Amino acid sequence: MNDRYLSVSDRLRKRANAVIPGGMYGHQSSAILWPGAPSFMARGDGPYVWDVDGRRYIDLVCSYGPILLGHRHPKVEEAVRKQAALADCQNLPAPVIVDLAEHMVERIEHADWAIFPKNGTDATTLSLTFARAATGRSKVLAAEGAYHGAAPWCTPTMGGVTPADRTNMLYFTYNDIESFDAAADEAGTDLAAVIVSPFRHDANFDQEMVDPAFARNVRARCTRNGALLVLDEVRCGLRIARGCSWEPLGVRPDITAWSKAIANGYPIAAVLGTDVIRQTACDVFATGSFWFSAVPMSAALATLSVLDEEDGIARMNAVASKVVNGMADQAAAHGLSVNITGHPTMTYLTFVGERDRLWTLRFAAECAERGLFIHPKHNWFFSTAIDEAIAAQVLDITNAAFLAVKAAGAPTG
Amino acid sequence: MNDRYLSVSDRLRKRANAVIPGGMYGHQSSAILWPGAPSFMARGDGPYVWDVDGRRYIDLVCSYGPILLGHRHPKVEEAVRKQAALADCQNLPAPVIVDLAEHMVERIEHADWAIFPKNGTDATTLSLTFARAATGRSKVLAAEGAYHGAAPWCTPTMGGVTPADRTNMLYFTYNDIESFDAAADEAGTDLAAVIVSPFRHDANFDQEMVDPAFARNVRARCTRNGALLVLDEVRCGLRIARGCSWEPLGVRPDITAWSKAIANGYPIAAVLGTDVIRQTACDVFATGSFWFSAVPMSAALATLSVLDEEDGIARMNAVASKVVNGMADQAAAHGLSVNITGHPTMTYLTFVGERDRLWTLRFAAECAERGLFIHPKHNWFFSTAIDEAIAAQVLDITNAAFLAVKAAGAPTG
Repeated sequence: MNDRYLSVSDRLRKRANAVIPGGMYGHQSSAILWPGAPSFMARGDGPYVWDVDGRRYIDLVCSYGPILLGHRHPKVEEAVRKQAALADCQNLPAPVIVDLAEHMVERIEHADWAIFPKNGTDATTLSLTFARAATGRSKVLAAEGAYHGAAPWCTPTMGGVTPADRTNMLYFTYNDIESFDAAADEAGTDLAAVIVSPFRHDANFDQEMVDPAFARNVRARCTRNGALLVLDEVRCGLRIARGCSWEPLGVRPDITAWSKAIANGYPIAAVLGTDVIRQTACDVFATGSFWFSAVPMSAALATLSVLDEEDGIARMNAVASKVVNGMADQAAAHGLSVNITGHPTMTYLTFVGERDRLWTLRFAAECAERGLFIHPKHNWFFSTAIDEAIAAQVLDITNAAFLAVKAAGAPTG
Repeated sequence: MNDRYLSVSDRLRKRANAVIPGGMYGHQSSAILWPGAPSFMARGDGPYVWDVDGRRYIDLVCSYGPILLGHRHPKVEEAVRKQAALADCQNLPAPVIVDLAEHMVERIEHADWAIFPKNGTDATTLSLTFARAATGRSKVLAAEGAYHGAAPWCTPTMGGVTPADRTNMLYFTYNDIESFDAAADEAGTDLAAVIVSPFRHDANFDQEMVDPAFARNVRARCTRNGALLVLDEVRCGLRIARGCSWEPLGVRPDITAWSKAIANGYPIAAVLGTDVIRQTACDVFATGSFWFSAVPMSAALATLSVLDEEDGIARMNAVASKVVNGMADQAAAHGLSVNITGHPTMTYLTFVGERDRLWTLRFAAECAERGLFIHPKHNWFFSTAIDEAIAAQVLDITNAAFLAVKAAGAPTG
């Protein structure tokens, strides 16, 4: 076909196929979205994103988590402009690293210190290195199927992963105390750490909130065995609680790994730890070419401040709950059988008994056609830019999408 | 001591000690600089940086490599402003990812495709994962003491590193064909890859340019054994050649890992590979929350364009050679015995026979006092912002610093 008949997206995709393996890699390949989904985005503003063909969507994916206050939040952008006018990546850190470390240590209960890597994977990997260095042990427990990053020790695909990369990993079933205890028994006195997410948010599966008894058992067992509890906050952090996501349960981790939402889209991660691990953290060479860059730290400080000023987490939770409950009511009214799972601000919707997520994909396509960007194979993400008025529009769209999939034959009952 | 008698740097250091392990971590801890070195930087502009106490320095560290065109280069900043006004981190990549991949594939000889991680460590780690996936083998050869990142498989400190992390690594001596062949023999038919830097730039050691016969032997042996040659361009990339640093030698790698200089300080890395590994690259889950961010890609595209427009590499090499030769002449004239090693744009200076780098530290301190920031334990980095006039100032300062260390008793002979 002559290129001038192609959409902007199609033309870009054709060029990308020549110079990028498979046309795109990782979690931002449009191959995991609905058929006909856009492959490239042009811009974002507040609750909206626009694809390269000019279609506008209300955004409930939020860049897979990083966008917490809506796209290009003016106060974050202002902080960025101020810092960028001075410097970003230098020979030494900028003063803002101290401001940010103080802010996080002050507001997050378990934390006595902070270190700022770049990727979520850096934060989870470094957390385990700290735990191993602090305990002098090797074994780590993780939930089967849990996503803790894309390094060889944890990536979900096995291409290029050697048995040695996983030899110190032991697995349990999330929320299953018996399987957890069995894995801890197997690790025995070589158990360095347990890494666990605040709830079970495995991609392409219905989500599962944590059983408080399970969380307490993890904590008790770590304490008894002299192992460290690493809470992976990369995905949940700042959408459930202002501190750790398990603070409301009264379960205190030793180390937490953060990234995604803390700087409203600017690239930064954080590892927070207790004083027990402070000396160890000095002994591990934690570094990266851009880890000390000042602009993302200024963005993080502004994001955390705006979140407080606007009571963002409470507001976002209230709106998200309304949307989630509204969708459940709509599905019920239309006789459609859906699973709506996970924390409201990070909800996920699937159709009961479907094969290969076909109805979920169709539902996502129907939403997109009406101007709502949700994810068919990954939990969604709310931002504080979704206010009551936008939430009402979201529900209008989901209602129409439910009717469309019902008309197309989605299973009822 | 009352805080009001402390410098800005001292006050920040005191606060940092409370909330950051050891006061600072990684390669940007001022503990590795000279006694009395600043710990925090305030801003940068062109060839200059200013510390938080207002002292200005000509910058020959360049943020440990990322600053290639001088700080805040106007054309890079303009490209950043334009992209940032649209979007940075989104649900899908921005069009600029295709522009950047095309640009790099076109200009770098061996490359048929590109993937863009965030850290240099991401790029080296991913390169090895691709090589293992493509060959179905496990073993990797690296030079003893070479720095390829801060992940457990390669970090220079052993805290928290388990034997399993290194079980597939075999080591050779850089430039030593015999030791290389012995390591390759030991890996046998399980050799997946060799990872090697364009020259030996180990921190705190005199540098060593590559012996072309060694490079050719590495290439030949990889080809013969069906293993892949991974060239780690993270530190050298764009300071030696416009393509790969081994292109002038006629030695072609299979995979290259890039970061640091490619976006003049903005956070991005790249893995480039040949068509042979293209399908494999699709099978490995290569991803990160900020890997698709558009602003650093726009910065990279602008950096590469400016480098071409200004014939940056040739100009930088000419100026760097003048400085390096000038310093050698100065040292000789004063009867001081120094080693000036490495590529001119990434030179390193030590004093012959010194203990614990004491005279090198003193020399760096004397330079800093006169307004020149060099590194006592790591190779330096030139930028294209160091023009003839600034280079003359650099040489005035090094001359005075040589005289000062001579007066203080530095060994002559």
